[in-house]
Amino acid sequence: MSQATILGRAARGWTRAASATPMVGVVDVLLRGLGQVMLQNNPATGLVLAAGVLVGDPLLAVAGLVGLGSSTLAAHLLGAEHGLIRDGQFGFNGVLVGIALAANLRPDSLLVLYVIAAGASSTLVLLALGHLLGRYQVPVLTAPFVLVTWAGLLAADRLDHLDPDGPGVPAPSRAGTFEGSFAGSFEALLRGISQVVLQDSWATGLLLLFGVLLSSRISALFAVVGSTVGAATALALGGQDPSVVHGVFGFNAVLSAIAVGGLFFVLTWCSALLAVLAAAGAAALTAGMAAVLAPSGEPALTAPFVLVTWLCVLAGRAVPALRPVALADVIT
Amino acid sequence: MSQATILGRAARGWTRAASATPMVGVVDVLLRGLGQVMLQNNPATGLVLAAGVLVGDPLLAVAGLVGLGSSTLAAHLLGAEHGLIRDGQFGFNGVLVGIALAANLRPDSLLVLYVIAAGASSTLVLLALGHLLGRYQVPVLTAPFVLVTWAGLLAADRLDHLDPDGPGVPAPSRAGTFEGSFAGSFEALLRGISQVVLQDSWATGLLLLFGVLLSSRISALFAVVGSTVGAATALALGGQDPSVVHGVFGFNAVLSAIAVGGLFFVLTWCSALLAVLAAAGAAALTAGMAAVLAPSGEPALTAPFVLVTWLCVLAGRAVPALRPVALADVIT
Amino acid sequence: MSQATILGRAARGWTRAASATPMVGVVDVLLRGLGQVMLQNNPATGLVLAAGVLVGDPLLAVAGLVGLGSSTLAAHLLGAEHGLIRDGQFGFNGVLVGIALAANLRPDSLLVLYVIAAGASSTLVLLALGHLLGRYQVPVLTAPFVLVTWAGLLAADRLDHLDPDGPGVPAPSRAGTFEGSFAGSFEALLRGISQVVLQDSWATGLLLLFGVLLSSRISALFAVVGSTVGAATALALGGQDPSVVHGVFGFNAVLSAIAVGGLFFVLTWCSALLAVLAAAGAAALTAGMAAVLAPSGEPALTAPFVLVTWLCVLAGRAVPALRPVALADVIT
Repeated sequence: MSQATILGRAARGWTRAASATPMVGVVDVLLRGLGQVMLQNNPATGLVLAAGVLVGDPLLAVAGLVGLGSSTLAAHLLGAEHGLIRDGQFGFNGVLVGIALAANLRPDSLLVLYVIAAGASSTLVLLALGHLLGRYQVPVLTAPFVLVTWAGLLAADRLDHLDPDGPGVPAPSRAGTFEGSFAGSFEALLRGISQVVLQDSWATGLLLLFGVLLSSRISALFAVVGSTVGAATALALGGQDPSVVHGVFGFNAVLSAIAVGGLFFVLTWCSALLAVLAAAGAAALTAGMAAVLAPSGEPALTAPFVLVTWLCVLAGRAVPALRPVALADVIT
Repeated sequence: MSQATILGRAARGWTRAASATPMVGVVDVLLRGLGQVMLQNNPATGLVLAAGVLVGDPLLAVAGLVGLGSSTLAAHLLGAEHGLIRDGQFGFNGVLVGIALAANLRPDSLLVLYVIAAGASSTLVLLALGHLLGRYQVPVLTAPFVLVTWAGLLAADRLDHLDPDGPGVPAPSRAGTFEGSFAGSFEALLRGISQVVLQDSWATGLLLLFGVLLSSRISALFAVVGSTVGAATALALGGQDPSVVHGVFGFNAVLSAIAVGGLFFVLTWCSALLAVLAAAGAAALTAGMAAVLAPSGEPALTAPFVLVTWLCVLAGRAVPALRPVALADVIT
Repeated sequence: MSQATILGRAARGWTRAASATPMVGVVDVLLRGLGQVMLQNNPATGLVLAAGVLVGDPLLAVAGLVGLGSSTLAAHLLGAEHGLIRDGQFGFNGVLVGIALAANLRPDSLLVLYVIAAGASSTLVLLALGHLLGRYQVPVLTAPFVLVTWAGLLAADRLDHLDPDGPGVPAPSRAGTFEGSFAGSFEALLRGISQVVLQDSWATGLLLLFGVLLSSRISALFAVVGSTVGAATALALGGQDPSVVHGVFGFNAVLSAIAVGGLFFVLTWCSALLAVLAAAGAAALTAGMAAVLAPSGEPALTAPFVLVTWLCVLAGRAVPALRPVALADVIT
């Protein structure tokens, strides 16, 4: 496996450069922040993910980078734990906040300030929730992204200078009904992955999947399983075709499957089965939260993933059938 | 008191049989799960409660049993604490989830799968909340039932194959206005108790009350007090007559009064007074939650009971006027 | 500084009288409860605050006193910690509950009972939340006021005898657009402070500010800073003029700035900057919560202040840049 050897060498070389050269170290931190969007503490994953967002929508990629910088810088200025910063733990919520605000609000100079403030706020929320959940050994996940984006979009709804007439989260068009073909299914699966970064593009999904594969074959496998189970659950329960095809039921299932299958638990048949059930539950919860949030017009974002994963991690601590991985070992 | 002696002997005989014969043991666990719906760890209460639901609506009784089996089996497979399983702690949320889903969705084979999945999910939620609340010595109560049913009904609202055109939670008909007669009041009181299992039937209420009486005279007394106080509070504050007569303001008050009066606190004049206030508060909160949930079309279920009882238990831990019963002693 | 000497002597004399004479002691406790509305454990602040509410609306002042008495008496009867009662910790939520219910419901004898019950409930909620948050060293703030008032108003919405046609929270009239004059700005600033007690009056705001000044020059400074930053943030983000002029975006910013700047943290440049950001965040969150609550018709009350301050206090515990003041030292 010479390919693996080359990748291994490149990874070691990069890690050495990152600790030796401050400038490379900063880039490393930011790339790991991007990689953590897919729950991977890996700069290569981050690089490919950035490419994936750029392919889908360059404007969102820029907004994501602004959020990434703002949230990471805020953590640095507040003196947050150095190890956590280095692992990109303060970056991924900022990335997603930036993408989500830019996807929903009109791009102008005020939006840049808004994204910077929201990115820094996501770091405050992360620190606060980390303090609350830490003693239960429960990870914060993307809860700061969800909470800050909801607050930001709701405030924008009431404040005139932040017009909510941006490009918007790709709405499921009525055109693309699900025809059950193999190619169509595979495309839907990739779109489900791409929705993690609020995109509706099979190319972005393919890049994200490739990025995860660079870091972990197990996570990549569960990403595919999650997207498939999410779409299948939605179809079985009667989800409307266009939404399913465009991955609306996929991204929360993808993240839940990665998290529960082999990341927060030691991989066993039991945890693998739970990962499949978690993906199905995340898809159902996506429908449920859409119904709750419909009056406010807010998207569910990754709230179903956060809730389902918290549920599995907390329940897993109370029963012997699941062996939790210590939080410190997961995120490093 | 030869009657008490006979009952006592039968109870001892059953307990012996349950620990000796595995098959009887399983039935005992399931009956205790049913009894816990009225906060009673007692198989006789469970048996009478099952009869009460059956009298009201056989379909709901079947759905309740499916949920009961699914939630208890999930706890067994996950290896949850044996003592808790044996006391029926993993059953009552499943029973209620099954009844509530069947009462609101069209009965077909997909619904059976849905109830099984929801019942098992209620066990996960119970384990998770138990882990969170355990260190505060706060009981989980029917919070898993409320959360899983809300998620399940909201998801069904968005997913076409789960049509929300089942028989529905008995809506208060305009016909039965409150006339203040003694018989009418007593009937309303019993309907308030029957709403615990989502029924609107005085016969079911009478059976539930009888079931509680088999287990605890104190709990039976507080069930009657709770239903009365709940209806009286609603009338005093101007609740619409048909709702009051059909027990809509009663069931949360019943459960709150049982829980606060003599179950989670040592029975004193102070805890008895708090139980009355809790019943009144639960009735007011039933109105408040109905207003919050109106846009989503969801029922409040037993959320007011859960909130009021958590409030009393938590506050009770901070003041000397109330003497809490250790959680382990309550539920065994 | 003979003025300070006179004030100091009066304060010492009053404290001596309060511990010597029971009647004066009771008045002292009630006045401190009023002072805690502005986060000041000071009877003089409380006296001036009462005058401020009285100037704005005598009816609301009476309702506030009923709530104050009910919540403090409930704490006394339940045997809550004597030191907390003496510092007025059980009073301020009752005051605000009374004012808010009276401002929104028709004044009659039933309302008096309702305010008494709600005031006592605010003490239960305070004890419960205190038990939950205590181990995180997080203050409960006005969360009981917010929760009890929401429950009370939502219930009233459904129950006919509590007509929601009271004078109502002063709605922003279209008349007073912001003209940017110095006098106009100063008036808006004071209205922002007066909204803490649900008033829209510069005179009330001036009295409240004076009351805070009697207790702490730092808190008074941050009250002014908070109101200014709140209004400025709302204007920058496009808040509608009348709301800004009438202080709608001010009061949560005022309380957040007082709490974060020099109260829950040792005053440093870092905590002062955080106080300014907290005020801006509270203003944005005021808009966001208004959007969430619009369908239910509920006011946001001080929920943005509670959330922003919890966020800062929790995050502050996790980073070295902020030095928290021990909770016991803050509230005494």
